[in-house]
Amino acid sequence: MNSIQHITLIGAGNVASQLGKHLIKKNITITGVYNRTPEKGRILAQELNSSFIENLTFIPKNTDLVLICIADGAISEIINQIPAGFNIAYTSGSIQLENLPKRTNLGVFYPLQTFTKNKAIDLSKVPFFIESKQPELSESLFNLAKKISSHVYFASSEERFHLHIAAVMVNNFVNHLYTLASDYLASKQLNFDYLLPLIEETTSKLKSASPVEAQTGPAKRNDQAVIEKHLKELQGATKEIYALISKSIQETHTKNEL
Amino acid sequence: MNSIQHITLIGAGNVASQLGKHLIKKNITITGVYNRTPEKGRILAQELNSSFIENLTFIPKNTDLVLICIADGAISEIINQIPAGFNIAYTSGSIQLENLPKRTNLGVFYPLQTFTKNKAIDLSKVPFFIESKQPELSESLFNLAKKISSHVYFASSEERFHLHIAAVMVNNFVNHLYTLASDYLASKQLNFDYLLPLIEETTSKLKSASPVEAQTGPAKRNDQAVIEKHLKELQGATKEIYALISKSIQETHTKNEL
Repeated sequence: MNSIQHITLIGAGNVASQLGKHLIKKNITITGVYNRTPEKGRILAQELNSSFIENLTFIPKNTDLVLICIADGAISEIINQIPAGFNIAYTSGSIQLENLPKRTNLGVFYPLQTFTKNKAIDLSKVPFFIESKQPELSESLFNLAKKISSHVYFASSEERFHLHIAAVMVNNFVNHLYTLASDYLASKQLNFDYLLPLIEETTSKLKSASPVEAQTGPAKRNDQAVIEKHLKELQGATKEIYALISKSIQETHTKNEL
Repeated sequence: MNSIQHITLIGAGNVASQLGKHLIKKNITITGVYNRTPEKGRILAQELNSSFIENLTFIPKNTDLVLICIADGAISEIINQIPAGFNIAYTSGSIQLENLPKRTNLGVFYPLQTFTKNKAIDLSKVPFFIESKQPELSESLFNLAKKISSHVYFASSEERFHLHIAAVMVNNFVNHLYTLASDYLASKQLNFDYLLPLIEETTSKLKSASPVEAQTGPAKRNDQAVIEKHLKELQGATKEIYALISKSIQETHTKNEL
């Protein structure tokens, strides 16, 4: 196959919506949008100058790629409904190619990023990880990603799995720490916004130092008195998480100093 | 007392160094630098066009403020060595005024930020929290902080304690998650830098949504199959932290949806 010019999107969530909007800017035509909930699918189809597909047997014949952007658990079932002959790719980090129904032209198009409703993302620096057993499709997906981002790589299902785990840690878990800190401050009538410059600096440091070098704080200094005072103040999950991460910081930095 | 123009710094670490450099830019004179390790103290004194003080009994008489920027555990002992009559302030988040030696003019000058060696910080947006039982000193410290930052507040020792706990969570703990993710990826010969755009977006989201609204990922979706797969892959502290935070995310979001 040659260059991918015509794409049918499956899904109408944050990933489908953001990828769709970037793709049409690169002169890709969205030949159709399919979604389990037709209302959402129709809205996205309209936004992408496309039309809504009622049934997967109606995917337009000129479609070069069916791009699946839906929850992991539903991917297998959708693939089984797509008529033979179409190239298919999906955007999931954690689903391995070998765990999906056998299809000749199946591939992965995985942007390592978090997509939120109504918040446009600069995709040009987002790493895309490509995989397919079919060399031609693999190359076409690589070139498609290159239209959106300057950081495109081939990666095996296993590498993608490792990246996804790390992504969960630095995005989902970090964001949950923000939630716990915010809840704690709210319980003391204090504003979470006081922390924003600190949070920005924490991220910014990563450009000039590795995280292990950038570590500061009571656990790093092995200041058990401060740790105990904080633990006495905290409750529930926040307390448990405080104790466990402090212990892990202490272990990491004791180890490094030996 | 009037405006603070002459400051003696105690300490020569990251906080002393960065605050000192910002203060001299605002035409404050650093009358002296004292530090337990003389070598480091002499270097900072030179950088601040000041002189090194061998002994705390030699603090120059024209000093308006002795600013203590040292580890929490050493603050009490240093205060006891400072001759009577000087205004004193310290920069710690977790030390309460009432737990220090009784001094007439003692206050807090707490910048809520993480300071790293050789990485200049834009202090103009950093929140400073001021406290003193002495109203005149309290006002002078407030005005001093205002020269550096546009975000200056009065806060009690208790409020500062709460802020410090939250700061540990969003800085120290977040940074440790980066360390664990980095170590995990390194063990798989994968580069931590792939995660940087994701980390930046995680921070950036906070400007437009509360962290609880911004949450995504397997635990938020209650996708137990993915969580189990990740846990099976991980080991040691990383596995424990993964399990505990995932559980906490699940609990937070189940609660919110009821």
